[in-house]
Amino acid sequence: MSGFNQLLLGGGLKQSIVDDINSNKDTVQRITDYVQKGQGKHQAYERLANFTDFWGPRISGSKVLEDSITDMMNILRSENLDNVDGEPVKVPDWRRGTEWATMVSPREQDFEILALGSSVGTQNETGGTLEAEIIVVTSFEELESMNDADVLGKIVVFNQGWDGYGHGKPYRDLGASAAAKKGAAAALIQSVADFTLYTPHTGQQVYQDNTAQIPVACITIEDAEFLNRMSHRGPVKLQLHMEAVTYPEKDSYNIIAEIIGSEYPDQVVVIGAHIDSWDVGMGVMDDGGGVFITLQAMTILKRLGLTPKRTLRLVLWTAEEEGLIGAKAYFEAHKNESDNFVIVMESDGGTFTPRGIGFSGTDDARMMIEAVMKLLSDFTQGTGVGESGSSPDTGEWEAIGVPVGNLWNANENYFYYHHTHADSMTMMDADVLDLCTIVWTSAAYVFANTDQRIPREGESIGGTTALVPNCISITLAFCLMILLKSRHDL
Amino acid sequence: MSGFNQLLLGGGLKQSIVDDINSNKDTVQRITDYVQKGQGKHQAYERLANFTDFWGPRISGSKVLEDSITDMMNILRSENLDNVDGEPVKVPDWRRGTEWATMVSPREQDFEILALGSSVGTQNETGGTLEAEIIVVTSFEELESMNDADVLGKIVVFNQGWDGYGHGKPYRDLGASAAAKKGAAAALIQSVADFTLYTPHTGQQVYQDNTAQIPVACITIEDAEFLNRMSHRGPVKLQLHMEAVTYPEKDSYNIIAEIIGSEYPDQVVVIGAHIDSWDVGMGVMDDGGGVFITLQAMTILKRLGLTPKRTLRLVLWTAEEEGLIGAKAYFEAHKNESDNFVIVMESDGGTFTPRGIGFSGTDDARMMIEAVMKLLSDFTQGTGVGESGSSPDTGEWEAIGVPVGNLWNANENYFYYHHTHADSMTMMDADVLDLCTIVWTSAAYVFANTDQRIPREGESIGGTTALVPNCISITLAFCLMILLKSRHDL
Repeated sequence: MSGFNQLLLGGGLKQSIVDDINSNKDTVQRITDYVQKGQGKHQAYERLANFTDFWGPRISGSKVLEDSITDMMNILRSENLDNVDGEPVKVPDWRRGTEWATMVSPREQDFEILALGSSVGTQNETGGTLEAEIIVVTSFEELESMNDADVLGKIVVFNQGWDGYGHGKPYRDLGASAAAKKGAAAALIQSVADFTLYTPHTGQQVYQDNTAQIPVACITIEDAEFLNRMSHRGPVKLQLHMEAVTYPEKDSYNIIAEIIGSEYPDQVVVIGAHIDSWDVGMGVMDDGGGVFITLQAMTILKRLGLTPKRTLRLVLWTAEEEGLIGAKAYFEAHKNESDNFVIVMESDGGTFTPRGIGFSGTDDARMMIEAVMKLLSDFTQGTGVGESGSSPDTGEWEAIGVPVGNLWNANENYFYYHHTHADSMTMMDADVLDLCTIVWTSAAYVFANTDQRIPREGESIGGTTALVPNCISITLAFCLMILLKSRHDL
Repeated sequence: MSGFNQLLLGGGLKQSIVDDINSNKDTVQRITDYVQKGQGKHQAYERLANFTDFWGPRISGSKVLEDSITDMMNILRSENLDNVDGEPVKVPDWRRGTEWATMVSPREQDFEILALGSSVGTQNETGGTLEAEIIVVTSFEELESMNDADVLGKIVVFNQGWDGYGHGKPYRDLGASAAAKKGAAAALIQSVADFTLYTPHTGQQVYQDNTAQIPVACITIEDAEFLNRMSHRGPVKLQLHMEAVTYPEKDSYNIIAEIIGSEYPDQVVVIGAHIDSWDVGMGVMDDGGGVFITLQAMTILKRLGLTPKRTLRLVLWTAEEEGLIGAKAYFEAHKNESDNFVIVMESDGGTFTPRGIGFSGTDDARMMIEAVMKLLSDFTQGTGVGESGSSPDTGEWEAIGVPVGNLWNANENYFYYHHTHADSMTMMDADVLDLCTIVWTSAAYVFANTDQRIPREGESIGGTTALVPNCISITLAFCLMILLKSRHDL
């Protein structure tokens, strides 16, 4: 919405809605006091450390993930939450196994690799080790322009550089299939990151149909650039050993827990995160922080005896990393209830210093979110509402028009840690996690507690359709422009 | 020197010295043009990449180090430098071999280690692998305060945090011996770094006399903090496997090359760096950058036909990392010539954006260096002269009163890369390396070309002893203070 419209609308919300939102001010203060001065201080951090240190990485298909899910359900039950349950999901069981790579000519140099999720291994090669020359490309276009004969049997190294995650992710996702189509034996992908200290970044890759499945791993920025320089000087030969295997699917669970609403129990505000992680690092940033501010939101409200008018539902999705498996299952199981889903929020973009809540929905809904976030202006930035509320596990809800939200935070360094061994408690700050907890808990509570539910496309707000104030504002603006113009003409 | 003294001295240098220094202005411009507009553009970067990519890490005692030394001498000869030579040095041959660590209880978790230089391995343990409980301390004092019985047979983990390199280095140097004195079986040291992305930092350690030699390795900040948290919850047991071995000393060489001075050939300005590196990373920052700006300094002057009045000598010390071995040998071999050493400069603190030349010497000498650096004000900061000119390989010269210098540069992120796999070409910038080359080459040339040689303690400057202007300035200041005081009293 433009500043001009905002000015004319004066916020646009009916005073009764504003008053209703503002009636939550004391509750937000209670939540804040509990987190900053009460038992809640550093509780998110302590719980996150206990959980991630105890379990370690929680990859889809592993016993550790399932044990950690059981542990989490026990925690939720011990907090006396309602309807704690695990909804069954079949999840992939891919394991990287032992893996190594070495340059064998023109000289010997070992280097770090991390197989990408769902990659096949090099089991079919002699001795289980692939030896081949490399060919380095900086883009799909460069690969496409090559003769198949020049790529045949080689290891394609993608040295695509960094121009944002959206630029790099397609290479991680599809680099193997693109290389296989040209006859390559394997692919190595520069880690999708803006900065590494020789830190490889794993992630999921997707084999395309009717294309050979070749081994694919990520390498560090340092080695991608090194191999690029080396290949411009002469032939470079690598050995690649990857014991990656995909086993039959395993049983897993999306975790559910609720605080049943006092007035509109059928209407649901969903807050969540994903419980699984990659098998490197401890899954602290991705997505332990999201899991634990969500757990805190539920337990703080429960412990403070704060029951919103609508139902607040925690969902901890399983197997996000390997294809949003839990999220898809959850959507299929609950899409027939979508009319009752007021907003679906996930925190999976880091828990750095909070800026507010990211939101995707109508302009009228955004006005309402902004009014809520004014209650939290001590902990937010600007309007307290970020441009986009999109998040991996809420994508299907967003696609059918359900409002979605996320934790908007200062995550400029997110890709330092993403899918790496550096995703550990060291990068997490206890005070900052408390700030995130305050924002996440308060926003969730108020979204679930307003008499006016957050509108979606075509819905009226507070009994007045959203179009009406917009029409008034546009008419007023038009009149004002004419008035100003005529005065200038004098 | 205080601002007050500077004011009174008005620069302090005799006009003839200033004029002589300023007569080098055109030469500095020729050097600058060659590097920024001529054949020298990005030459340091290209040569550094070719060298470090081709050879890789160059650890003391390795064939690679010796081959790279031969290669470097051939480069120096091909540039027609004078007196290219290798001065023999016996150097340590320590190899880390295979190494790994894993937490075996309360759960399994592999983690990264890097044995510290000169560490013994775990060969004497059952199956070559040590298994023991850990005890975590944050300081030597905490370790000292413990009962020996509580440390006996354990792995002492030092989680000393970061409070500057000077704070952490003693733990890396002496942690093993401190732990051994309390009966520990091994020691793990938090990497001496301000920031890691799960990047361990190796380095040299020193066993103390009459103390058991126990295996010692560094671990990441992430794991030091992890083990600290874990140990506060209950017993933690690790397995440590280190095949580190020290072999008999090997032959190595300090590399020498000169441009013989046109007027005072016996007087020498030494510029240098160390050619060896650790066995992790490519030895690009530590100390490839220093090596190649020094090489550039010599070759640029030679190619431009610029012969200073004094001799300019390149020294590339060997085996710096494992105890300044080359530097000590060079000092022993040449200390009887110390009267002729005008200044000894090493670049071993990074080649980030230059700020000028760091300098340690008398105030009078500093005045002279500042006058030289005014010629380079486009590429420097403030006076262009940093507070300290100390550097590892020049320490013995500094101790006997020879003026020392280094490349003063914006190396705030030096400890991101120091002694890690991330010490690669990725962290180096071609344009920035050109700026360093300009500063290093120009400073070295002018220091070698002034009629007045850089004075040392007790030496006169320009025919007037250094004490005289200082006496005058102090007397003047005293008179001024009395005058001002008496006016105030009126």
